[in-house]
Amino acid sequence: MVYKTVVLFVVLLFNMSYVIFASDPDPVQDFCIANTEPASHSSQCKNSSLATVEDFVFSGIKVPGKFGPTGLSGVSVNSNVFPGLNTLGMSFVRADFKVGGVNVPHFHPRATETAFVLEGKIYSGFVDTNNRIFAKVIEKGEVMVFPRGLLHFQMNVGDTPATILGSFDSQNPGSQRIPAAIFGSGIKDKLLEKAFGLSSKEISKLKKKLGSH
Amino acid sequence: MVYKTVVLFVVLLFNMSYVIFASDPDPVQDFCIANTEPASHSSQCKNSSLATVEDFVFSGIKVPGKFGPTGLSGVSVNSNVFPGLNTLGMSFVRADFKVGGVNVPHFHPRATETAFVLEGKIYSGFVDTNNRIFAKVIEKGEVMVFPRGLLHFQMNVGDTPATILGSFDSQNPGSQRIPAAIFGSGIKDKLLEKAFGLSSKEISKLKKKLGSH
Amino acid sequence: MVYKTVVLFVVLLFNMSYVIFASDPDPVQDFCIANTEPASHSSQCKNSSLATVEDFVFSGIKVPGKFGPTGLSGVSVNSNVFPGLNTLGMSFVRADFKVGGVNVPHFHPRATETAFVLEGKIYSGFVDTNNRIFAKVIEKGEVMVFPRGLLHFQMNVGDTPATILGSFDSQNPGSQRIPAAIFGSGIKDKLLEKAFGLSSKEISKLKKKLGSH
Amino acid sequence: MVYKTVVLFVVLLFNMSYVIFASDPDPVQDFCIANTEPASHSSQCKNSSLATVEDFVFSGIKVPGKFGPTGLSGVSVNSNVFPGLNTLGMSFVRADFKVGGVNVPHFHPRATETAFVLEGKIYSGFVDTNNRIFAKVIEKGEVMVFPRGLLHFQMNVGDTPATILGSFDSQNPGSQRIPAAIFGSGIKDKLLEKAFGLSSKEISKLKKKLGSH
Amino acid sequence: MVYKTVVLFVVLLFNMSYVIFASDPDPVQDFCIANTEPASHSSQCKNSSLATVEDFVFSGIKVPGKFGPTGLSGVSVNSNVFPGLNTLGMSFVRADFKVGGVNVPHFHPRATETAFVLEGKIYSGFVDTNNRIFAKVIEKGEVMVFPRGLLHFQMNVGDTPATILGSFDSQNPGSQRIPAAIFGSGIKDKLLEKAFGLSSKEISKLKKKLGSH
Amino acid sequence: MVYKTVVLFVVLLFNMSYVIFASDPDPVQDFCIANTEPASHSSQCKNSSLATVEDFVFSGIKVPGKFGPTGLSGVSVNSNVFPGLNTLGMSFVRADFKVGGVNVPHFHPRATETAFVLEGKIYSGFVDTNNRIFAKVIEKGEVMVFPRGLLHFQMNVGDTPATILGSFDSQNPGSQRIPAAIFGSGIKDKLLEKAFGLSSKEISKLKKKLGSH
Repeated sequence: MVYKTVVLFVVLLFNMSYVIFASDPDPVQDFCIANTEPASHSSQCKNSSLATVEDFVFSGIKVPGKFGPTGLSGVSVNSNVFPGLNTLGMSFVRADFKVGGVNVPHFHPRATETAFVLEGKIYSGFVDTNNRIFAKVIEKGEVMVFPRGLLHFQMNVGDTPATILGSFDSQNPGSQRIPAAIFGSGIKDKLLEKAFGLSSKEISKLKKKLGSH
Repeated sequence: MVYKTVVLFVVLLFNMSYVIFASDPDPVQDFCIANTEPASHSSQCKNSSLATVEDFVFSGIKVPGKFGPTGLSGVSVNSNVFPGLNTLGMSFVRADFKVGGVNVPHFHPRATETAFVLEGKIYSGFVDTNNRIFAKVIEKGEVMVFPRGLLHFQMNVGDTPATILGSFDSQNPGSQRIPAAIFGSGIKDKLLEKAFGLSSKEISKLKKKLGSH
Repeated sequence: MVYKTVVLFVVLLFNMSYVIFASDPDPVQDFCIANTEPASHSSQCKNSSLATVEDFVFSGIKVPGKFGPTGLSGVSVNSNVFPGLNTLGMSFVRADFKVGGVNVPHFHPRATETAFVLEGKIYSGFVDTNNRIFAKVIEKGEVMVFPRGLLHFQMNVGDTPATILGSFDSQNPGSQRIPAAIFGSGIKDKLLEKAFGLSSKEISKLKKKLGSH
Repeated sequence: MVYKTVVLFVVLLFNMSYVIFASDPDPVQDFCIANTEPASHSSQCKNSSLATVEDFVFSGIKVPGKFGPTGLSGVSVNSNVFPGLNTLGMSFVRADFKVGGVNVPHFHPRATETAFVLEGKIYSGFVDTNNRIFAKVIEKGEVMVFPRGLLHFQMNVGDTPATILGSFDSQNPGSQRIPAAIFGSGIKDKLLEKAFGLSSKEISKLKKKLGSH
Repeated sequence: MVYKTVVLFVVLLFNMSYVIFASDPDPVQDFCIANTEPASHSSQCKNSSLATVEDFVFSGIKVPGKFGPTGLSGVSVNSNVFPGLNTLGMSFVRADFKVGGVNVPHFHPRATETAFVLEGKIYSGFVDTNNRIFAKVIEKGEVMVFPRGLLHFQMNVGDTPATILGSFDSQNPGSQRIPAAIFGSGIKDKLLEKAFGLSSKEISKLKKKLGSH
Repeated sequence: MVYKTVVLFVVLLFNMSYVIFASDPDPVQDFCIANTEPASHSSQCKNSSLATVEDFVFSGIKVPGKFGPTGLSGVSVNSNVFPGLNTLGMSFVRADFKVGGVNVPHFHPRATETAFVLEGKIYSGFVDTNNRIFAKVIEKGEVMVFPRGLLHFQMNVGDTPATILGSFDSQNPGSQRIPAAIFGSGIKDKLLEKAFGLSSKEISKLKKKLGSH
């Protein structure tokens, strides 16, 4: 019977135990600080008896990072950067905007975001799957929620620098920034021409601009 | 209508929560066919004793739907269209491609997709959050997986029409199609100019093309 | 473009708001006692200010229920029977066995079970998806775990009545009892004949025996 | 057979459709603004075509709320207060501390918290299930994570008022504040005496102090 | 105090860090191709910079597999066979039926299935936990959904070979095929006799037939 | 652009593959007995072909454990103690009470509990997040449910020893026992004084009593 051979195959592989998983749901222990020491590869969580309070405090976003060409400095603090977040289902980002600075349209494949304005006036919005836009200018002390996986964007429309603290319900939400993902990743020109109704020349121009980001 | 008093009540209880929920995880009953009859609004699942086999069979994708300007016909079958899928965590899509037809870059905010080629040769790929592209031509009988929430795209590169059956691990994965979501939703020109490095005139042109989709 | 009509359709349906869900994961409030009063059917949780301790205590399994033909009395206490369990992710069952009594091979589609022996000696086991059996006689005070969704069974092999308390990680695990599900549900004879290698006559005999359960 | 009656029972109840659920996992639509209008009682989500950007912006924590006896002002913004958060898996809190102000030991039954210091110096910590404490003074711009469900606490140890923005991975994390939950809820004196090794008189004194909170 | 020793024990084990988990929910990174190289045992995901498009394409079901005694060829493609599916929550199966071929009653402990008919006429159905059957003949282009964990079955009732593509919302749904699981796994005869109302001789006959599968 | 450096950083870390996770949701294989052998550190699940029925049976709670100062003996059986529970989403506890014995106010950060009275009369209750108490005396054969994460407590109010079997919907629910967690963990006196309205002397006394537990 054909199933016999299939089953044998599965058993073989199963015994090799490479069935591994990763997810963002409820933790099954108090915490599991991701183990970053190469030598301790047999253990995925840092030995819990060696945990200190420093493992649960992050001090790296007191000031903005470096600014990019659109006038934005974004520092994402996920479980890769802050191992204490591992298994705890959350992470965050500090985003600073020069006057007129833009956080390009992007989305987080694995999280909702709540964005709290620390300073400034930010034109902020998202687009739903029916292509409706929900956008307005929000100010210091206001919070906007971007539903999981939906495109969103921000621009400093005030006269002073602006800062946002974004929080996520995933230890590693990911971020896909549209301009570079579309025009800087190497998708075939022909496909992009049809998708955007642009000429081959126009696509080339966009690729040149956005490919290096 | 019977609902009125109770809902008032619930609102009053506000503190005690009129919190309503929706999610894609394990069902808590065998099935819960979404109730579409207006008269039976007090019940969210169709009375299970009235369920028939027809509630669990979908016959609407035997043939392609209408084709759009990029040479694609896509029919999404989620729990809105096929109520029997409600609470069961899955849905699917039939996509037909004319020769040269394009499924524009898009992503599903709430699902992974496995795409099975029913007919034809499809250039098919996705972009990860580091802007790396994973793309190749796949043929009849091959399957490509698009990880949850990541941008992907397809183009019929064969000499004959092509068809794909996509499956999702959500009853309603959603779909955000980049060209229209970015240029057809009403995001401020200034923001788009900075994000894509385009002139005001170029943005206007793109908006005109993509705004009507 | 073909997508437009599809989207309109979805929007229409969406506004009808019959997209309803049900799942067994984390609660989003302290509790939500399922509302059983017909008059208040527009409200899903009982008004929390009317909750009393009685809503969280179940007293209906102090004694066995009625025994069936295989010498088993099983009383399943899920969220339908004990509304206080609603949204809390757990339920339980009391099973009493006459001497020689049998809990026929069955499985719970939505839960793991931990079975604690209150009294007696029970031959107890499960079968994994490679058709390996894990079975032995367990005694008072011992606990066996049946992994989620796997076939399991029990038989009182002692000289006295036996009792088990089973617990589940679902508010409504469901139970599919093989003999009746296979031979008492109306699956076509031809299919069963091939599946079990039995004659038409043998299948008829089994159906007669198991169809009335 | 005993199962028969049980099953009948279940079927009856099932048809009454009071099987209701609530959870914090993946949404199954873009958003579902909790419906607070009495008139729209048949629908749990606000009609999505009526959604506006205001549904996704919260402006109520620009300033501190009223301060309590321990020198704390806490404003929890969950899906009851901000209906746009419904089904999106997140919520937040603004906590302001007078000099010396204390956020009493408490925990959130349904969420991890990331606490970002907006202003001031805060002694901040949590206790794990082995009774180990992880605590230190954190300052403006630092973030501490409190793992899901674990006891934590804060005290303003600086010379100026302090403010914290806490974010949660649940739309309604709940909060159980130990002093009032233990001594202000009505647990039998005898039990508390044994649990804390206190005299009847000492328990009475604590109850008098904490019962009104 | 007794708790002290228990706690110490737990701490000891905890520090050994062998508490490992596996689940099918949201991924926490773009992808995690299961690592199959024995040498790289310290890493569960293949080094992501070595990922290629081939990791996400499966070409092994272009043709049917070998047929078994019931006239079925089934090729299950889960994360063991197609490591790129790891953490992505989906898998699939190709099932080919000779004329009259049967897919015996079985269930998947960890997934819902959507079955799309690629060719032929298939009598297809499932049984719910109240032993109700939902079955009918479905044809090319139709889709049937089998709710998570429920018994289902298929038989080619047409005059030509038939093929089905099944999709699952789990990377490894598992499959428990009733005839062999019940009669071929070694469950005690006495238990089976009572469960099915069969004689010792009849059970022996069934075991002989089904034990070798 | 600032994002570039951040992304590079993430890639670097990602390739180190120490992003590890742990959770309590659906298993992705039949079982995964936690591997306790130090030598086999490359494998997280015990080789499944070496699994025996003993891996799924626990015999360690036939009798009570040692009693502590409050007259309680509690034996928690989680996946650390019973590796066969690993990934299966459940665990349990046996609690024995001397006459007058007390299970001090505590909560489980990661689980709901159903508590079945095996023997005796137990004053049993929980407190919700509005500080309402739900408590009563329950007797042999009765079951009380404690919603996930909420404070609960028990006291033997009968004339004979009492026993409870508690079940959890997590393989490792954790337990935070309030008296020791608050007064025995080292939280600053000043904070506790304010939180409980106690004098420095009173806090010292409580710490002395409860710190050694």
